[in-house]
Formats: sequence, C-alpha cells, structure tokens
Amino acid sequence: MGNLIELMKKEKATIEKYLDLYLESLHIQGVLHDAMKYSLSAGGKRIRPFLAIAVSQLLGKSRELVMPYACALEFIHTFSLIHDDLPALDNDDLRRGKPSNHKVFGEDIAILAGDALNSDAFSVLFEFGEGNFQKGGRFFARAVGGRGIGIGQTKDCTIPESERTVEVLDDINYYKTAMLLIAATAGAAAWLDASDEKIAALDEYGRHIGLAFQITDDILDVTSTPEELGKGVGVDAMLHKATYPALIGIEKSREVAARHVDLAVKSLEVFEKNDWRDALGDVATYILNRSN
Amino acid sequence: MGNLIELMKKEKATIEKYLDLYLESLHIQGVLHDAMKYSLSAGGKRIRPFLAIAVSQLLGKSRELVMPYACALEFIHTFSLIHDDLPALDNDDLRRGKPSNHKVFGEDIAILAGDALNSDAFSVLFEFGEGNFQKGGRFFARAVGGRGIGIGQTKDCTIPESERTVEVLDDINYYKTAMLLIAATAGAAAWLDASDEKIAALDEYGRHIGLAFQITDDILDVTSTPEELGKGVGVDAMLHKATYPALIGIEKSREVAARHVDLAVKSLEVFEKNDWRDALGDVATYILNRSN
Repeated sequence: MGNLIELMKKEKATIEKYLDLYLESLHIQGVLHDAMKYSLSAGGKRIRPFLAIAVSQLLGKSRELVMPYACALEFIHTFSLIHDDLPALDNDDLRRGKPSNHKVFGEDIAILAGDALNSDAFSVLFEFGEGNFQKGGRFFARAVGGRGIGIGQTKDCTIPESERTVEVLDDINYYKTAMLLIAATAGAAAWLDASDEKIAALDEYGRHIGLAFQITDDILDVTSTPEELGKGVGVDAMLHKATYPALIGIEKSREVAARHVDLAVKSLEVFEKNDWRDALGDVATYILNRSN
Repeated sequence: MGNLIELMKKEKATIEKYLDLYLESLHIQGVLHDAMKYSLSAGGKRIRPFLAIAVSQLLGKSRELVMPYACALEFIHTFSLIHDDLPALDNDDLRRGKPSNHKVFGEDIAILAGDALNSDAFSVLFEFGEGNFQKGGRFFARAVGGRGIGIGQTKDCTIPESERTVEVLDDINYYKTAMLLIAATAGAAAWLDASDEKIAALDEYGRHIGLAFQITDDILDVTSTPEELGKGVGVDAMLHKATYPALIGIEKSREVAARHVDLAVKSLEVFEKNDWRDALGDVATYILNRSN
C-alpha cells in the first residue's frame, strides 16, 4: 500500500502535466479557458486517469496510447463536479477546500465551463487519441450521458429520501459513480483493443470499486473531521439523508464496502499476477481505508 | 425555392423519425428521458441535419452513413438551446412558442438534460455511426466545446454592448452559430471521407451561411411580428443590444447578409452542378429571405 501511494503520486504529476498540455493545445480563449483550468487544476486524486494508466500497463500497452483517454475521463469528472455544485443542483460553495467554480466565475460561466469540459473530453479523444474509437468511445459516452452520470444525478435529485433503500442507493451509486470508473477500467481496455473477457473482468472491477467508493464516502461523512475531508462533514445526517450508515449502521456499511472490495480484487484473477495487477488490487483496498 | 421547402419538409419527417429512434435506442430512464425528448421533439427547421444529408447526397454517399452524424448535430443544437434559456444565461421562458425546458422540468433537470444531450450526441456517433471518427469527430467536437459554441456563448455573455462592433458581432456569430453549421457541412464531408478540397469548400459555405443566418436573425427581431417569429420581437432594441441593424441599419445589414449568401453559393462551385448543389445554394438564399 505504501507503494500505491508513491505510485499514485508519481502518476498524478504526469497526469496533471498532460491535462494541462491537452487543455492548452485546444487554445480556448479568455475567461472560459480560465474557468475550465481553475477546476481542472484543482487537484484531487486523479483516480480515474490513474486507473486507465494502470489498465494500459496491465495489458502491456503503451502509456501514450491511453493518455488522451485517461485525461478525457478527468475532463468529464471535472465537468460533473462543476455542474453538481451549481445552485440549482447541490448548491455547494466549496470544492476541495476552494470556492466552487460558480462562486469564482459566476453561474453563467460555470455552466458554460462545465459544458465545454464535457464536449472537450471528446475533443481530447479525437484530437490526440489513436485508440479504438468505436469500442472505447461507446464505454466512454455511455458513462457520461443519460445512461451514466446524467441519470445518476437525476435520480439523486428526484428520488425522495423516504424511498431510498440500500438497493436504491446502489442503483444511484452505480450510475453516478461506478459507470465512470467502469469507463476508466473496462473502457480503457476497450480503447486499447483488449479481449472481451478482460473487458468484462474490468467492468466487474470498476462496478465494485465504484459501489465501495460511494459507501465509504457516506461513512466518511459521519466519521471524519472537516480537515481530513477537505469539505463539510455530518452534512448527510444534518439533511436527514438516507445514506448507507443511516440505513444499516456504520459497521454493516463497512462490511458491505469490504465485500465489494473483495469482489473487485477477485475479478482481477483473469489477469496474470504482476505489479500492476497488485496496484489495481491495492486501489480497491485504498478506497476502503481512505480518510478523504 | 418551392422545391427546397418541399424537400426540407420531407427530410424533416425522416430526421425526426431517426432522432426519436436514436433517443429511444439509448433507453434513458424517467424524467431525464422526458426532458431530453421534450426539447428534442419541439420542432424547428432541422437545418443542421438537413445540411449534413444534403452534403452526403452531393458527395454521392449513402444516407445511412450520414444519419447518426446528422442527428448528433441536432442533439447538440438542442442541448445548446436548453442551456441558453436557463435563468443564469438568457433567462428565456419561451422557446419555439412553448415553455422552455427549465419552465417545465425545473432548472436542475434542464441542466442535466442539456448535459446528457451534449454527451449523448457522441453516444449517437459511437453507437450508431460507421464514419471516419477521427476526421469527422474533430470537426464535430471542435464546434461544440470551448473552441465553438462554448466560447461563442461566453463572449456573448461577457462582451459589453458598448464594445460590440460588427467585427465583434461576426466573431461571436462565428463561434456561436457558424461553427456548428461548418460541422454540419465540412464536418459531415470529413465524416464521409471527402477530399480536403471539398471539405474546405464546405467550410467556407458553412461559415458564410452561419454569419448570414445571425444577421438575418437580428433583422427579423426588428421587422417581424411575434406570430411570424414564434417568439418575442423588438427584444434586442428594448435591451439596447448592439445588433447589426442597430449598428449599421437594416438596409446595410441586408446587404452584408446578401454578400455572405453570394459567397456561400460561390463556394459550392467546386462541386458539379446537380440537384443537391442547387438545394444547398437555395438553403443560403432561404436563410436570407426567411420570415422565422
């Protein structure tokens, strides 16, 4: 696990170099560029690009080939955070300890910057990518639009707390979070022309770490300090939100998350054991044990 | 011209059948589907898909090959209208004589429905398309994101009326309107593997009809009745907007628009004269003479 932290830190530096390179290569003008850059360079763990890179290495493919796809995932993730924070949606003033995009640039520019990051994720694929557009693109686009993040957010906006069972939470979490992690793993494999068996295994892996990630998020809201988390805590409870801990308690939530992590690790058995398979296994464990 | 109206009407029916087919094939759930469908089926002239189909026929390519690309353009156009109407942007309650998306579904769902139409335009390309992804996709994505509609909208939001010369208006209109028409013409040709010479000619054509279209829009705001236009008129003048007629008068504006139309028609000379070249020429003239 110490290795994973080191590895993620090293890859994060490379990923951020490429994120910047791709954004600047698009030559976007003025305040729109600034608003896109503000959120794109706001940090975070860059877990989605990291996963795509790890998959490329697991498959023995070139890092160059996966980099546009990996960074396009982060464009999408950033877009979804900007729109998620808007007054009409979650109305969050803070993101990663900094003022959210619309607090700095205004609601109009924040909407447009999110839109542009959404579209320009595809620009990054088309301008800089050389992978399997149709196969990889399908995973990618499916994770983003009305069959992915879009329907996840919609369900999260519209399903009343009183109707939320753990099954409903899993359904929301699948669309809102797991699908983009599936795009980062199975989708990256499809982009790199992997076999259907390997794509399917990584689909399983992505789904399980996605569900584990959201359950852990719910738990952290109860157990963390604001300093650890970089955002407000206890918010869910204050809003009487039907979270995993609220529905089945913290201990049972931890058990469910741990089971997802076990299944994620198990799904990797189709690959030969090597450092990158271990790294992906460690990511799953890291999700479970993270403190922010 | 009588022919063009008939032709556009016939193609509109086909386009709307495919728009519906593609949307339903994505199996998007619940209110998100409904909000996407509401705006996607709200009518309009479907000029962008029509142009892409006309280009496919001009190039002697199959209609099937261009249809996903043509409909993806309309997904994008619809997304841009939904977000354009939002309270934080133009704050329009009406669109094509009907309540705008956020008036029916609320601001949250309208943002998400626009986002999904943006992403799922690419889903349509990847799921149903068989064209030249890299070459056609580049035109397409460029027209949508921070190098196209996005920067056009941003400039329109941020450049003060007092700084707007006709050159500034042309710059805004190029990004906000012409780029997607270039995607509908030059981009469709690239998707269909046309020669660079033909792509360049259609790029010229798209640019000129785009600029003519926006100038005519400004003129119609002064000269139409609300019944003709299907939306409020005189709005620009009421808001003391620096439009073409406000800056150089109606007559001179008409002359500039007519010059763009002439240049659009001239750019088609690289193609052999046939019915579809005539149709594209007629589209340019139609833009100039339209009443809504």
